[in-house]
Amino acid sequence: MAASAGPEIERLIGLLAKLPGMGPRSARRAALALLKKREQLLVPLAASLAETAEKVTSCSVCGAPDTRDPCSICSDGSRDNGLICVVEEAGALWAMERSGAFRGKYHVLGGLLSALDGVGPDALRVAELVGRVKGGEAKEVVLALPATVDGQTTAHYLAERLSGSGVEITSLARGVPVGGELDWLDDGTIVQALRARRPA
Amino acid sequence: MAASAGPEIERLIGLLAKLPGMGPRSARRAALALLKKREQLLVPLAASLAETAEKVTSCSVCGAPDTRDPCSICSDGSRDNGLICVVEEAGALWAMERSGAFRGKYHVLGGLLSALDGVGPDALRVAELVGRVKGGEAKEVVLALPATVDGQTTAHYLAERLSGSGVEITSLARGVPVGGELDWLDDGTIVQALRARRPA
Repeated sequence: MAASAGPEIERLIGLLAKLPGMGPRSARRAALALLKKREQLLVPLAASLAETAEKVTSCSVCGAPDTRDPCSICSDGSRDNGLICVVEEAGALWAMERSGAFRGKYHVLGGLLSALDGVGPDALRVAELVGRVKGGEAKEVVLALPATVDGQTTAHYLAERLSGSGVEITSLARGVPVGGELDWLDDGTIVQALRARRPA
Repeated sequence: MAASAGPEIERLIGLLAKLPGMGPRSARRAALALLKKREQLLVPLAASLAETAEKVTSCSVCGAPDTRDPCSICSDGSRDNGLICVVEEAGALWAMERSGAFRGKYHVLGGLLSALDGVGPDALRVAELVGRVKGGEAKEVVLALPATVDGQTTAHYLAERLSGSGVEITSLARGVPVGGELDWLDDGTIVQALRARRPA
């Protein structure tokens, strides 16, 4: 495997191959492109990654990645504090934001409950969510979780944990295709699913 | 487009999207994976890119990227100095090395002649090749260029420039599929094409 490229390039190819959607061959192509475009791509990407590693942290309120803590959404006074949208990952949060249909706050779980992968409530930001709902001004929690087995299991679990808090628990309408991931949906479907949200 | 992610993450996504095989969506997924795997992926990749930018240069003899100059292949005394394999890019060099069928030296052109893109001989390392062939111990130059219009134009041009130097000019056998790129071939085809090389 291209031993002649030297250990530094081999290491770079190995790391690039770990990115989602990349394999050994596309990682080699990417490394080659980086070497060819040293000033336009290699140096800026190295700097951007270093800056991201240095500056970007998780928001202590919602868990979203941001350079600020609380993040730009949590500290945005124009957004509705009465509405909390629970998402699996930041990718789903970004998809919600792209749809432009939600003007409340978020809560990033950091994953889904999974018996198969041994992920329990303690591995997710569930306690933080319960704390936010009990101590805060939330009137409605929108569960925007994927329509997969793990996603729905997590939604049921959260609805149970939050029942009795006096807060309305809703989930996205069944506009989300079964088995679909939120990050891959078109904005129109997200808008419709949000508008038709229903009690969980 | 995910304005909430902050300018640092937006910049990272924009740079990742410039990698071959990546688009805006897969770049977001990659950025998300990097943020989730900070210590296993984000920090090492940032360091690897910085190290590559700092240490890897082009070999002054053959033009291949390496941390050493001359590169590890050019300074390998066990390889045949009488044989020079001319390739378009380092990706093709790596493909040749993976095939294990070539034990000579290389010359990386840095591209192909292209009337359409306005790439002339001066934009490539042609003069360096002619100098190496005239001043060196080369007995045979193997043109391992893609079987595309630009690749074959470049091969004809090089064969003409090197004619009269007393060096045999060969090119890879027509085992290379027409329109195919060297980097994507299986090793067996490369081995056969190299064995059946013929005068250009």
